[in-house]
Amino acid sequence: MRATVLIRPKPGILDPQGEAVQESLTRLGFPVSHARVGRLVDVELATDDPAEARKQLDRMAAELLSNPLIESFSIELEDET
Amino acid sequence: MRATVLIRPKPGILDPQGEAVQESLTRLGFPVSHARVGRLVDVELATDDPAEARKQLDRMAAELLSNPLIESFSIELEDET
Repeated sequence: MRATVLIRPKPGILDPQGEAVQESLTRLGFPVSHARVGRLVDVELATDDPAEARKQLDRMAAELLSNPLIESFSIELEDET
Repeated sequence: MRATVLIRPKPGILDPQGEAVQESLTRLGFPVSHARVGRLVDVELATDDPAEARKQLDRMAAELLSNPLIESFSIELEDET
């Protein structure tokens, strides 16, 4: 089963990359008042059970893919999107 | 209107970060056969018209946020997700 983990800086956490993107977009003529940059990880899991997949992805995201101090994550299973 | 641009390495393009993630997850006991790492950008647009938002986001993604040679992008408007 394919799934995606979306990782974003938590609200209030400084995001210099997002600020740079916002400034560049504004300079290019795109009226964007706010931009935040995060990561995504697409994975192919061995299981096809959505509940089991979600359990594994929660642990992967918390233990390896994100930094829980400064980032939050969300999970999308391919069948649901 | 809030929107997210999702940027991924194109199929066939080398993704060393994804390979490292896949190896690390496997070592940690998560059975993942494949992992690819991409970026996401959350933006707050001035417009509330979905068609206009999509047009702006297409140009932003192609001109600044992604490298069209090696990356593909997709767009999610908040109202649709």
